Amino acid sequence: MALVEDVFSLSPKAVSSALASLWRPIQGGVSAPLGFQAAGITAGLKDSGKPDLALLLAPEGAVCAGTFTMSLVRAACVDLCVDHLQVGGGKARAVLTNSGQANACTGERGWLDSLRASQALADRLGLPVEQVLICSTGVIGVPIPIDTLLAGLDPLVEALNDEGGAEAAGAILTTDLVEKQVALEAELGGRLVRIGGMAKGSGMIHPDMATMLGYLSCDVGVPVDVWQAMLKRVVDRSFNAITVDGDTSTNDSCLAFAAGEPLEREHLQALEVGLLVAAQQLAKAIARDGEGATCLLEVHVEGVASDVEACCIARTICGSSLVKTAVHGCDPNWGRIVAAAGRAGVAFDPAAVALWLGPHQLMEFGQPLSFDRRAVSRYIQERMDGAYLSDDTVRICLVVGDGSGDGMAWGCDLSDQYVRINADYTT
Amino acid sequence: MALVEDVFSLSPKAVSSALASLWRPIQGGVSAPLGFQAAGITAGLKDSGKPDLALLLAPEGAVCAGTFTMSLVRAACVDLCVDHLQVGGGKARAVLTNSGQANACTGERGWLDSLRASQALADRLGLPVEQVLICSTGVIGVPIPIDTLLAGLDPLVEALNDEGGAEAAGAILTTDLVEKQVALEAELGGRLVRIGGMAKGSGMIHPDMATMLGYLSCDVGVPVDVWQAMLKRVVDRSFNAITVDGDTSTNDSCLAFAAGEPLEREHLQALEVGLLVAAQQLAKAIARDGEGATCLLEVHVEGVASDVEACCIARTICGSSLVKTAVHGCDPNWGRIVAAAGRAGVAFDPAAVALWLGPHQLMEFGQPLSFDRRAVSRYIQERMDGAYLSDDTVRICLVVGDGSGDGMAWGCDLSDQYVRINADYTT
Repeated sequence: MALVEDVFSLSPKAVSSALASLWRPIQGGVSAPLGFQAAGITAGLKDSGKPDLALLLAPEGAVCAGTFTMSLVRAACVDLCVDHLQVGGGKARAVLTNSGQANACTGERGWLDSLRASQALADRLGLPVEQVLICSTGVIGVPIPIDTLLAGLDPLVEALNDEGGAEAAGAILTTDLVEKQVALEAELGGRLVRIGGMAKGSGMIHPDMATMLGYLSCDVGVPVDVWQAMLKRVVDRSFNAITVDGDTSTNDSCLAFAAGEPLEREHLQALEVGLLVAAQQLAKAIARDGEGATCLLEVHVEGVASDVEACCIARTICGSSLVKTAVHGCDPNWGRIVAAAGRAGVAFDPAAVALWLGPHQLMEFGQPLSFDRRAVSRYIQERMDGAYLSDDTVRICLVVGDGSGDGMAWGCDLSDQYVRINADYTT
Repeated sequence: MALVEDVFSLSPKAVSSALASLWRPIQGGVSAPLGFQAAGITAGLKDSGKPDLALLLAPEGAVCAGTFTMSLVRAACVDLCVDHLQVGGGKARAVLTNSGQANACTGERGWLDSLRASQALADRLGLPVEQVLICSTGVIGVPIPIDTLLAGLDPLVEALNDEGGAEAAGAILTTDLVEKQVALEAELGGRLVRIGGMAKGSGMIHPDMATMLGYLSCDVGVPVDVWQAMLKRVVDRSFNAITVDGDTSTNDSCLAFAAGEPLEREHLQALEVGLLVAAQQLAKAIARDGEGATCLLEVHVEGVASDVEACCIARTICGSSLVKTAVHGCDPNWGRIVAAAGRAGVAFDPAAVALWLGPHQLMEFGQPLSFDRRAVSRYIQERMDGAYLSDDTVRICLVVGDGSGDGMAWGCDLSDQYVRINADYTT
């Protein structure tokens, strides 16, 4: 949780680094903000016997903003979240997450299972049903063993506590190798403000609205429309800027809860910066833990007309199978990087392109420079080994003109391991 | 070259099978049509010592239609083709192809090399320079060893003959494992009409206008505007419907030459069907020979509002890393197929979806059917082994409603081998 790295990753234009430096890393994950409780247990939904049921409970008065998959084929739990947030006017207190079954393509039964689970949990927590949300992750088309889930609700509610962030972060994982948590604090207007978060990713990661389950919490009061707009901007520069395999999931959801004393208007920008730092840290953790990944790929694009176009080029490069395999092979194959940029659908002058891989410049004015191939290859190799100051980030910087738009994207290399993991996921 | 398979692959709506059955496979590849000559030699452009210089010469009066990469970063040879076809009003007689160097991102020098080569060849053939085109394929950013190429022109022209199709088809390859040729003939209006073709593919295959080098020849006269429109329609349903790795190349080009006695208007539709059969055969050969591929993946989508939308869904499924790895693992993971369809950006009702993998139906009304998982797995396995009647095609059929639009796309599985091939291509 080195904050330095996260500040480095903020686009220079996105925010002033002064605001970012207000935020310090703390312990506690999603339950770090005041009044938030979390829990994670093993209810028996997974054959592996690993934790599979998580609960996040926000304090009274909480508002919740959400962004969800743009896929036409979306899970019952996504429909339920959208529905409950609309009915409740953005007031929501709890989110239940089951891992093991995605509850997508499960038809009427899937919808009823979601309803039953949220109603049963609402009863136990003494909340109106529309204040309880549900997220599911796992295999598509498999219904949730609903009786097993319902039987897990009592022990889950009992396990709730204000240091439960780590347990919750563990119970939302599927093929992920590591837990993904973040917690930050800053003094804004003379009071301590905390942001917490957790996420899961791994495969089917190319979010078109949010990632495959991201959760953020914050202990200040923010009007729900302001909070929703803030989340949208933050998600576009974090979860929506990562890709593991170009496959958008049926269950992508990002939920952000805010509850506490209202924050003064003048501090909203600093809050948004903190939210962005937290979301980027989780997003990068997902890319880094992409199936079969051995390094984090960070692509920075500058000089385009708009930020949106810059992000589009950056994500196209990040998602290119040929760029990803070249990185995996420590191969400074810059031709693939500019070829990917060329097909991103964004206008730029190929004769103005300059390209860096780490500190090594490979192109200028659209043409290759002579460079030390072995040194560049070593730059990549050291980051795959984690040999260089524990830094696992391979950085590509592409400048395509003198426009003021810039943007970043994150991904990972494509390894034999990715193929092996995905060649027999359900069988 | 079993024609049966190719007729099967034609969209039922695209053309009547009666017209397709007019066309019979013959020998001869791109030089099969009357008056066409071809050659392929080893000029020394590749370190491997394999053939690397090819020439196709069309008879006097030939017209040429072309479709080219939509990538912003495109090779000097593509610029030259576009320029020469425009200056010459679509009259072109010859195309030179060098393999080993893509001549992309080579700046002013790349452009001058293309000009020198086309001028030198035009002098030898006694043609105006604008009637000579150039295609290049190989590593991006590496200039052509132009003196070596120029020294190869005399032996290349000397080698020209009307049975040179196979030599030419061999000399345009890079990492391809097999030559890709086609030749068909039909009797139209009491005369024999022949279509020939060759192509190269392998990696960086996700054509956005044509494939990484496709060539078609035909011995009838067709007005150049009719020929160009016909090629555009054909390419959209063949080369533009394949994907190996989602990476559009800097050099994608498809050139189609027609020369001979004018064909009567009433036979143009039959000619277009023949051209489509030939182009689909080459396109499928490219997908089948995709880097690391062990089978051909064919996706048929029906029931959408328009053909364009159906093709879009089909190609999205074909390009999904998760679908491709599932096929490689003989894993009937239908959830990944509908998830890919859901993110294609095309409107359909998820509750109306039906899905087949080969003869096995896996979904109905948007929900999974119970099916014999081992039988479906065996269906895929047999096609990867080529054990089932030498058929290597894994067929997916998705019906998403009752619209009249349908479309097909072709791709291949994603294997460990793909990663290994691409992890160290230039180093």
